[in-house]
Amino acid sequence: MGIRGVADRAKSASHRLVAIETEAKNAALVSIATALQNNAQAIIAANQADLAKAQEDQLAEPLLKRLRFDQAKLIAVCDGIDSLVGLDDPVGQTLAATELDKGLELYKVSCPIGVIGVIFESRPDALVQISTLCLKSGNAVLLKGGREAAQTNRLLTDTITQAGEAAGMPSGWIQLLETREDVAEMLSLDDAIDLIIPRGSNAFVRYIMENTTIAVLGHAGGICHVYVDGDADLEMARRIVVDAKCQYVAVCNAAETLLVDEAIAAAFLPLVQTDLEKEGTEIRGCKKTVALIHCPAATEEDWRTEYLDHILSVRVISGLSEAIDHINHYGSGHTDCIVTNVPERAAQFMTRVDAGNVFWNTSSRFSDGFRYGLGAEVGVSTNKIHARGPVGLEGLVIYKWKLLGQGHIVGDYDGTGRQFTHTKLDKKYPL
Amino acid sequence: MGIRGVADRAKSASHRLVAIETEAKNAALVSIATALQNNAQAIIAANQADLAKAQEDQLAEPLLKRLRFDQAKLIAVCDGIDSLVGLDDPVGQTLAATELDKGLELYKVSCPIGVIGVIFESRPDALVQISTLCLKSGNAVLLKGGREAAQTNRLLTDTITQAGEAAGMPSGWIQLLETREDVAEMLSLDDAIDLIIPRGSNAFVRYIMENTTIAVLGHAGGICHVYVDGDADLEMARRIVVDAKCQYVAVCNAAETLLVDEAIAAAFLPLVQTDLEKEGTEIRGCKKTVALIHCPAATEEDWRTEYLDHILSVRVISGLSEAIDHINHYGSGHTDCIVTNVPERAAQFMTRVDAGNVFWNTSSRFSDGFRYGLGAEVGVSTNKIHARGPVGLEGLVIYKWKLLGQGHIVGDYDGTGRQFTHTKLDKKYPL
Repeated sequence: MGIRGVADRAKSASHRLVAIETEAKNAALVSIATALQNNAQAIIAANQADLAKAQEDQLAEPLLKRLRFDQAKLIAVCDGIDSLVGLDDPVGQTLAATELDKGLELYKVSCPIGVIGVIFESRPDALVQISTLCLKSGNAVLLKGGREAAQTNRLLTDTITQAGEAAGMPSGWIQLLETREDVAEMLSLDDAIDLIIPRGSNAFVRYIMENTTIAVLGHAGGICHVYVDGDADLEMARRIVVDAKCQYVAVCNAAETLLVDEAIAAAFLPLVQTDLEKEGTEIRGCKKTVALIHCPAATEEDWRTEYLDHILSVRVISGLSEAIDHINHYGSGHTDCIVTNVPERAAQFMTRVDAGNVFWNTSSRFSDGFRYGLGAEVGVSTNKIHARGPVGLEGLVIYKWKLLGQGHIVGDYDGTGRQFTHTKLDKKYPL
Repeated sequence: MGIRGVADRAKSASHRLVAIETEAKNAALVSIATALQNNAQAIIAANQADLAKAQEDQLAEPLLKRLRFDQAKLIAVCDGIDSLVGLDDPVGQTLAATELDKGLELYKVSCPIGVIGVIFESRPDALVQISTLCLKSGNAVLLKGGREAAQTNRLLTDTITQAGEAAGMPSGWIQLLETREDVAEMLSLDDAIDLIIPRGSNAFVRYIMENTTIAVLGHAGGICHVYVDGDADLEMARRIVVDAKCQYVAVCNAAETLLVDEAIAAAFLPLVQTDLEKEGTEIRGCKKTVALIHCPAATEEDWRTEYLDHILSVRVISGLSEAIDHINHYGSGHTDCIVTNVPERAAQFMTRVDAGNVFWNTSSRFSDGFRYGLGAEVGVSTNKIHARGPVGLEGLVIYKWKLLGQGHIVGDYDGTGRQFTHTKLDKKYPL
């Protein structure tokens, strides 16, 4: 079966999933968790085979760590499924209700998006998280994982498919793509696939966007900033900068640029440099920074760079407005922080910085679906429409307008006839 | 100034618009309405010139009607601005609030999208509606209207620009593009433009989608259905079919296909054919239809055709499930209706039909932003993400995650340390 067939099966499954009750979806999720536990030995063995191959191919240590799917990871994903069962169903929520006229009632009701294609890195736990988020939100899903995880992914998908179908989920709601050619074909099927979520590098997300007319939810890298205001608590600022930069450098919500108000730069920079050096992190500074502390000079390119490494670019600026302008010019709209004791400045920063996540007196590293309490996340979005920041269940639904009438026709509202009442109703969709 | 400069000015304006208070935006809207009235004579004269040119070029009568911008249309758009002033500001609404831990509070707050490019037909009233919706929702807008309305659009844009800037709106928040080359250039500026809304034919929307990586909100035509169930009130069904098909045939929410349950086809089809013939509307029927009434046979192509004309394709089907399958296969996801006395069947139809608007016992022609009470609409979406159906103010905003801390760092939540509380808060964003 080609990808056309795969996508058509997914579309059919999505048309059935949309009508499945919350209880049935939750029961299927419980069955899936049980099946994963029952199949633990085989899944871990498959992962061992993937790991052996990856080691042969000299995959880097951090990537091997992500690829590993052991008993601990299995327990973690099953705990994740448990939490997901406990969350409200995002489908069927009444978002608005309006009486258009007597007996003519309009409801805006949440519903699944349909068929979602997700392309993700070699992390088997992501496969479980993504597919169960899609099931809970009533979406069919086509999954393309990294090739290093091929054997693990195949067994996980088989396990989830069988447990899901045995619990009454429609055949085809979860399917695995295997090759890059499969992905290329998927990108052309805009009649069957409603949303593509590519996880990976900026260049990869861009490639996907340039090669499909399907809507794409992705992120354009994480050039995250911390701005330390002239009226900041400098001890707090030190802790936040170190956490934002050094706690885990390889992730998109790590800070890449520190902006420092010139009023406190001479006092603050030597302190933070000492802290960062302890963590093995190097500063690249603007001219004013270089005049205050010993460090290499930053170039224009540094302000646009997502290091994902133990490097922090530092710029001394004249104050709040220049900080906001810098971030809106060089940032990627991911996560930006202000450290200040002045609420009005925090308010300005949070209104005017154009990013999905804007933080006051806290670290950029909190920008994450689990930490936000969304359950897991299917990805992170720096898009400006539909969903922004960490995307959990709520980003996987859309809505329908449902209009209930009693034979109403538009011809009766033609200027001289009946008038619309447009009264807000405080009730749920009744059907 | 090239389109690069135009878009950069719009981006700068959007960064200022985001911080403008509701009262200031409303005051600007009032000034714009006044300025339009004060400039009425010149605007109407410019429109007369456009109309004269269009008549010379033998533009069709319905298009001339849309192009006309007279005193009545001016009063209508100013009334529209008045209503818009009265609507709640869609920006700054707290959509969710969660305590992540003591003193660490997460708020999901609505905000403008940024810069929106709208390409629309030769209807000067649309220019006023779109630009004022964008202003109220805090977005900068690039407008490309049909060339037939060039003189009217120029004068309207000048009037709105001057009145807006005099009322404190940032320079560049509204700008007019003049040529197709301008549009082509705009489509490449994905760093400055956040959303494109193309209004027009299916082929045109598709062309836009294929030629940009910017998010596109558009509609893929309106192949709207009415399904008359076996347990329908046939008198009601007749009125609804005639209204849905004939009340205004040239619009996307007019019905194109009638599906009739075989249980009532013999009784219903002759009645509805008589009604439709009175309105000058021709039926193209499936084999079963042709066996019951005198009409030409429909081809496979008819089920996929948006006639926008006095033609209705008619198919006799075996019941609810076949109706839903037909609609999900051939429909365009715009607006689909069921006529039935059985609430359970209506509920099934409304859950399982995959369309932005699903109606019970009422006409597809109600699918419209004004009739829904959204104020005006900036367009209609058959997308599956962000916004669906008529798009009013709410479709022009997105949200930011705003996190307020007191020096919280992620390092303290690393397994053994602090725990997240994830408690839902019932309060508004406080800054």
